[in-house]
Amino acid sequence: MTDLLTIGRNAKQASQQLSQLSSSQKNTLLQAIAQQLKQHQDSILAANEQDMKAAKSQGLTHAMLDRLLLNHERLQGIINDIDNVIALADPIGNETENRLLANGLELKKRSIPLGVLGVIYEARPNVTVDISVLALKAGNAAILRGGRETRLTNLALLHAIECALTEQGVAKAAIQLISDPNRALVGELLRLDQYVDMIIPRGGPKLQQLCLEQATIPVITGGIGICHLYLDKHADFDKSLAVIVNAKVQRPTVCNALDTLLIHSDIDTNTMASMLAELERQQVQLKVCERVAQRLPAYAQHKATAVDFDQEWLSLVLGVKLVDDVDAAIEHISQHSSGHSEAILSDDNDTINRFVDSVQSAAVYVNASTRFTDGAEFGLGAEVAVSTQKLHARGPMGLEALTSYKWIANGNYTPRS
Amino acid sequence: MTDLLTIGRNAKQASQQLSQLSSSQKNTLLQAIAQQLKQHQDSILAANEQDMKAAKSQGLTHAMLDRLLLNHERLQGIINDIDNVIALADPIGNETENRLLANGLELKKRSIPLGVLGVIYEARPNVTVDISVLALKAGNAAILRGGRETRLTNLALLHAIECALTEQGVAKAAIQLISDPNRALVGELLRLDQYVDMIIPRGGPKLQQLCLEQATIPVITGGIGICHLYLDKHADFDKSLAVIVNAKVQRPTVCNALDTLLIHSDIDTNTMASMLAELERQQVQLKVCERVAQRLPAYAQHKATAVDFDQEWLSLVLGVKLVDDVDAAIEHISQHSSGHSEAILSDDNDTINRFVDSVQSAAVYVNASTRFTDGAEFGLGAEVAVSTQKLHARGPMGLEALTSYKWIANGNYTPRS
Repeated sequence: MTDLLTIGRNAKQASQQLSQLSSSQKNTLLQAIAQQLKQHQDSILAANEQDMKAAKSQGLTHAMLDRLLLNHERLQGIINDIDNVIALADPIGNETENRLLANGLELKKRSIPLGVLGVIYEARPNVTVDISVLALKAGNAAILRGGRETRLTNLALLHAIECALTEQGVAKAAIQLISDPNRALVGELLRLDQYVDMIIPRGGPKLQQLCLEQATIPVITGGIGICHLYLDKHADFDKSLAVIVNAKVQRPTVCNALDTLLIHSDIDTNTMASMLAELERQQVQLKVCERVAQRLPAYAQHKATAVDFDQEWLSLVLGVKLVDDVDAAIEHISQHSSGHSEAILSDDNDTINRFVDSVQSAAVYVNASTRFTDGAEFGLGAEVAVSTQKLHARGPMGLEALTSYKWIANGNYTPRS
Repeated sequence: MTDLLTIGRNAKQASQQLSQLSSSQKNTLLQAIAQQLKQHQDSILAANEQDMKAAKSQGLTHAMLDRLLLNHERLQGIINDIDNVIALADPIGNETENRLLANGLELKKRSIPLGVLGVIYEARPNVTVDISVLALKAGNAAILRGGRETRLTNLALLHAIECALTEQGVAKAAIQLISDPNRALVGELLRLDQYVDMIIPRGGPKLQQLCLEQATIPVITGGIGICHLYLDKHADFDKSLAVIVNAKVQRPTVCNALDTLLIHSDIDTNTMASMLAELERQQVQLKVCERVAQRLPAYAQHKATAVDFDQEWLSLVLGVKLVDDVDAAIEHISQHSSGHSEAILSDDNDTINRFVDSVQSAAVYVNASTRFTDGAEFGLGAEVAVSTQKLHARGPMGLEALTSYKWIANGNYTPRS
């Protein structure tokens, strides 16, 4: 039987050891993890094949199967990302804000590990490694709860990680996996505030809400991207089309893929028609607003319903809506966005500035694809999650999001006057 | 009847106006608040007198009465603190981390307001002004829920603030007070996630736990200080005594006052006796550990019970415990501290470093009083709260803790490759 109190206590204890490792000790540990993953790659891929087989027989969606799949190339990509994290500066022990206060104290802030992370995620095996590596680099322990569909893959990945921890003399409890599928364990994890410092739910709206409702530990919500792209009338339409196609088609199953295209209503009907035709050639299924259907009767059978503009599609579906100006686009986004990623395509500076100033999502793109919202693309090495809330961390969460700090004040037997 | 949905909606709307104010508009608004508080000071102090009278007749503790009291000097102090906030740099609109990414995008982070703050606090009228001023300076709206004992004072303070908002053309809903004493409103506020971005509970353990259990909005816990001071054997005992007395006696009713004194067991009994005697001369009531009672039989009647070392006293009580070395002090702190403020008095660098490296509380003092954990003392202008959690903000929370950020990426019709 899985005993979460023991898991929590052991994680806390391991986190104390981790907080005292030097930068080079931590990097050596990460190198060892990369090496063990390479050495165990056959068993990892074999485990994933079993998970995939079971998942297919259970009729998982294409999006879920794509997330679950680990092949040689993807595993190599995951291992290569570890090198990126090794190359990053150690986020711990930095002293900033050195100040001599009016009261005579020398005050500074020193970055410290958060402690123990609790991460609950869907069936994406890359997350198991990404989070372990980032957690350890920032001196944290982690308790992982992966999707049940990826159980065997995760056990195989964890075995490799544990080999590296043991080899380097670090407590195995530094990274622990709750592999027992009993759902009640999630609720227990969310209330393990005695030992866990932060909960990161990576999954759909139901999981996020469950965590917000039940957790007594701070929760970082995110990962749900209802992403918008606004095509202004002042834009290069050929180049724009390439960006729109990229945002929608390149990897439609992930959170930074485009969900809704907002088109300035002054753009002429032929231009619009040829753009939508190209999207259809790329297998995109359009859900258009009333006004698009009026101007292009060929789409009368593809009209969007009321809820379609509140969907994170995670597939090749795309909502298309006409708006009369940038303010209408901003208003639509403020009502329908999940605060993840939005883009504007425009050559007009005033319009661009209005959009950038008014859209308060975690990532705002000017003449670029929404697909860039990603820790590696942002130069953060890898990412633990993409936060769509406003506290602590926003957008792709890298190492810094896994740290806290303490204030240190030096005096000379100084009382407060 | 108080309609929290309307309060929330109006706050959100006001926050949009506030996010667009320039630095000078915000500073002019704060000046107007200072002026209106001065103009209304008679009615404010009269309201406080009524609150004090009622509180005394209800038998509130001395600590609560002291927190509730507003006199001319304290009100002037609160108004003067507004000038400090005006003098601070605007935390909004700063662009940092300008980077040209490998993918060709120009990426930067821009600081933005959090949005709407929900603050639940005990009967401390200064909090009403401090929070309003800091919230506005950072472009945020705030919904305040003050202690019922300070209801009339808060209404008077809010009236002055509203006069300033109106005078400056800012929506009155920028700062709202839930003055209806119905307790169910707190629960409703904690679930107003559609409109409120952050909850700050300033109050005792019960309020903090209530917020953690019930809120669907991120909560910043804090303000509970079980503060320790470790007196090492290598220390100047005369100077140390002055710091200990300051930490305990200067203002015993606040969260950064000393709760437990840890004394190195090598310090000789006479020195210890004379220090404890001086504390008693200062009206401090000692609760000593078994070993102190053995060495100083005069304190046999003052022995601490099991729970006494887990108390935030908020009064002139002080726990006293012998420890055999700095590691024992660190261990005691890690088990009993609330993560607020701890201090070491020592002249030995190795001992100091061991303490500073291992104690992970929000504020760690070397040869200084714990009483310095305070936004104004830290040069933050004023403070919204003292956070004892590890996410988002730690220790005294000033303006920066009231901001979020967004990532802005500029491309040239850039798809992700």
